[in-house]
Amino acid sequence: MAVYTEVSDSELEAFLAEYDIGEADALKGIAEGVENSNYLLTTTQGQYFLTLYEKRVDPKDLPFFLGLLDHLAARGINCPKPIHGRDGNTVRTLAGRPAAITTFLHGLSPRRIAVAHCAPIGEALAQLHLAGRDFKLERPNALSVAGWRPLFEASRRHIDAAMARELGSEIDFFEAHWPKGLPSGVIHADLFNDNVFFLHDKLSGLIDFYFACNDFLAYDVAICLNAWCFESDNAFNATKARALLQAYDRVRKLSDDERRFLPLLARGSALRFLLTRLYDWVHTPADALVKRKDPQEYLAKLRFHRSTSSLADYGL
Amino acid sequence: MAVYTEVSDSELEAFLAEYDIGEADALKGIAEGVENSNYLLTTTQGQYFLTLYEKRVDPKDLPFFLGLLDHLAARGINCPKPIHGRDGNTVRTLAGRPAAITTFLHGLSPRRIAVAHCAPIGEALAQLHLAGRDFKLERPNALSVAGWRPLFEASRRHIDAAMARELGSEIDFFEAHWPKGLPSGVIHADLFNDNVFFLHDKLSGLIDFYFACNDFLAYDVAICLNAWCFESDNAFNATKARALLQAYDRVRKLSDDERRFLPLLARGSALRFLLTRLYDWVHTPADALVKRKDPQEYLAKLRFHRSTSSLADYGL
Repeated sequence: MAVYTEVSDSELEAFLAEYDIGEADALKGIAEGVENSNYLLTTTQGQYFLTLYEKRVDPKDLPFFLGLLDHLAARGINCPKPIHGRDGNTVRTLAGRPAAITTFLHGLSPRRIAVAHCAPIGEALAQLHLAGRDFKLERPNALSVAGWRPLFEASRRHIDAAMARELGSEIDFFEAHWPKGLPSGVIHADLFNDNVFFLHDKLSGLIDFYFACNDFLAYDVAICLNAWCFESDNAFNATKARALLQAYDRVRKLSDDERRFLPLLARGSALRFLLTRLYDWVHTPADALVKRKDPQEYLAKLRFHRSTSSLADYGL
Repeated sequence: MAVYTEVSDSELEAFLAEYDIGEADALKGIAEGVENSNYLLTTTQGQYFLTLYEKRVDPKDLPFFLGLLDHLAARGINCPKPIHGRDGNTVRTLAGRPAAITTFLHGLSPRRIAVAHCAPIGEALAQLHLAGRDFKLERPNALSVAGWRPLFEASRRHIDAAMARELGSEIDFFEAHWPKGLPSGVIHADLFNDNVFFLHDKLSGLIDFYFACNDFLAYDVAICLNAWCFESDNAFNATKARALLQAYDRVRKLSDDERRFLPLLARGSALRFLLTRLYDWVHTPADALVKRKDPQEYLAKLRFHRSTSSLADYGL
């Protein structure tokens, strides 16, 4: 939760003059997302979402992110839709930062994940993958296998020898056995419950596409298994997984290769979140603005996936 | 900026069932106020403001605060109006905290204070004082003279000897010379630019009444002189002061005593904000969640008011 950049009333007025969405009625910095400054903007025409991109987002990636949202929204995905200025552009400068306005999505993020959330997640993820197929821009996944060893090296002196051995041998394994040639495309790559809205028991929106990139589609499914199918005591819930996977499969059929590699991809995805959380954990002061997330949770998830022998362990 | 307490979708649903304002459509934690958790709540009927009262607000004070907002709103003051539940109550429990819903006020807080803001501030403050006259509840000002020495004692070992001498002798002075018997009533006591909204160059709302209390009305005027009439280099702007004071006087005439004591009250108000900022400065870690405010600014303001010889120095 953070608002890094303050926007003055006069700056906002000048900024909004480039759009056709009315005049500012209210602007509230909101505690959502840790990468950017996010504001809820109310104008004489309605509610919008204003994002100022801070240093953790590379401005070179903005055409990919905003273009993707445009592309997906045009194909019926309930994601924030960028508002184009009179000049057609979606990105301009506000308070010295690249900034964009999008539509405001209604809904609430589920705090306690129920089985009933999992089929809508699987369905929406598959729809997202289909809708992204003909998107022209590409962005490599900086947090795939090649990125894991540098993250590990930057954190290893802060962790105990046993954990360092376990993580090191996981990375060795994935560098040797990561699959090749699985169906690829645009993935969300961060579809956690914070980034999904439900309204009246229906999935009403997907947000925060700032990790979106090109990678194996099944890797996105694997991320969702980790994000949605474990209980708070880190026990895997095969009923949730079955609901998620079957719903996905009904919209976009998983190939035999994708099914075969799913446990390995889920184990890799657990390692990826373990490593980034570990990095943040050891590099963020305990009392800093950003809430640290315990990496141990993902060690338990990783071990679960390493222990599975077939898709039957995932309810299929 | 802070959201201390998270609200789950199911908790919110049960809470809203006690009101007649529709169902939740969206809930955004907002970065406003450092004392409480504040949410912008969108329901099927409109936008509202949801506050969860955290430990710095005494639950015993809530009937005063919420009752005051009801009282003022009924008398035409543009302040948040508490929403009453079906049982008539404005305060109930959410996520283990006392919580209340109010109307959502439109407008933007001015970041750069212009002369044009100052007459509306003076006018609104006087209207507030008149509207509060027949409010029945009372809340003493915990941050008036009697509260200054304890604040000072809790900070003095962190400051240098010269500053400790200066602040100590100020407190001696005020304990001996604080006026008695000036017109009293409900004051806002924290009417800084963050707590005022403007829309299309008109004052559209006053918020954050959680320092409101009973004290000299002219003390509230003095706080506004400090909050609105100094430039960023701490130079006093008599043009702004004249605009503020004349506008106040047109709505509620300042008595001769109030005018005579205004420089002293302004000096006292500068000391009050200096002492609370100093306390927060020396007791808050530099990298904590809450932004610390430099107490030096108020030392400069205090010295200005000590140097004035008459109301002519304030543009009157």
